Amino acid sequence: MTDKKRTKITVNIYKKNYTIVGSESKERVEEIAKLVDEKMNDIYQGNKNLDTTRLAVLTAINTMNDYLKLKDEYDELITLIEEEDKN
Amino acid sequence: MTDKKRTKITVNIYKKNYTIVGSESKERVEEIAKLVDEKMNDIYQGNKNLDTTRLAVLTAINTMNDYLKLKDEYDELITLIEEEDKN
Repeated sequence: MTDKKRTKITVNIYKKNYTIVGSESKERVEEIAKLVDEKMNDIYQGNKNLDTTRLAVLTAINTMNDYLKLKDEYDELITLIEEEDKN
Repeated sequence: MTDKKRTKITVNIYKKNYTIVGSESKERVEEIAKLVDEKMNDIYQGNKNLDTTRLAVLTAINTMNDYLKLKDEYDELITLIEEEDKN
């Protein structure tokens, strides 16, 4: 069996270590961890009563919102390209 | 003072309620909540020893990874369009 190259990287997010196993590069995993950590800290600044679980769920919600917004823009771009190809 | 219309919606994610305040529609907030809840459940199925905080952080990491992948694709598309415009 030949495996796709898998990396195992430990990152620190909001004072806890997470070991991430996947096919992403070390740089990408570190970038992701930094962005998630920053978002958690930002949300904490907005509401210091939130526990870590709620903070992490709100971070996931926030990121999912960014994802869906970008997906809308991406889909619009694809539609525009398809329209142009027709003309 | 005129405010952009702000919605206040309560959603349930992983057996906890979250009140989301923002400019998104009710449908969009519910879609986001459903996707985050599904991702948390998927990750839990892969490792039943994870506590809720770790599960939520891993969900945020996973979503951020999806976001960055889509961002790469989006940027590639923009570059392609710009190249085409030059020719």
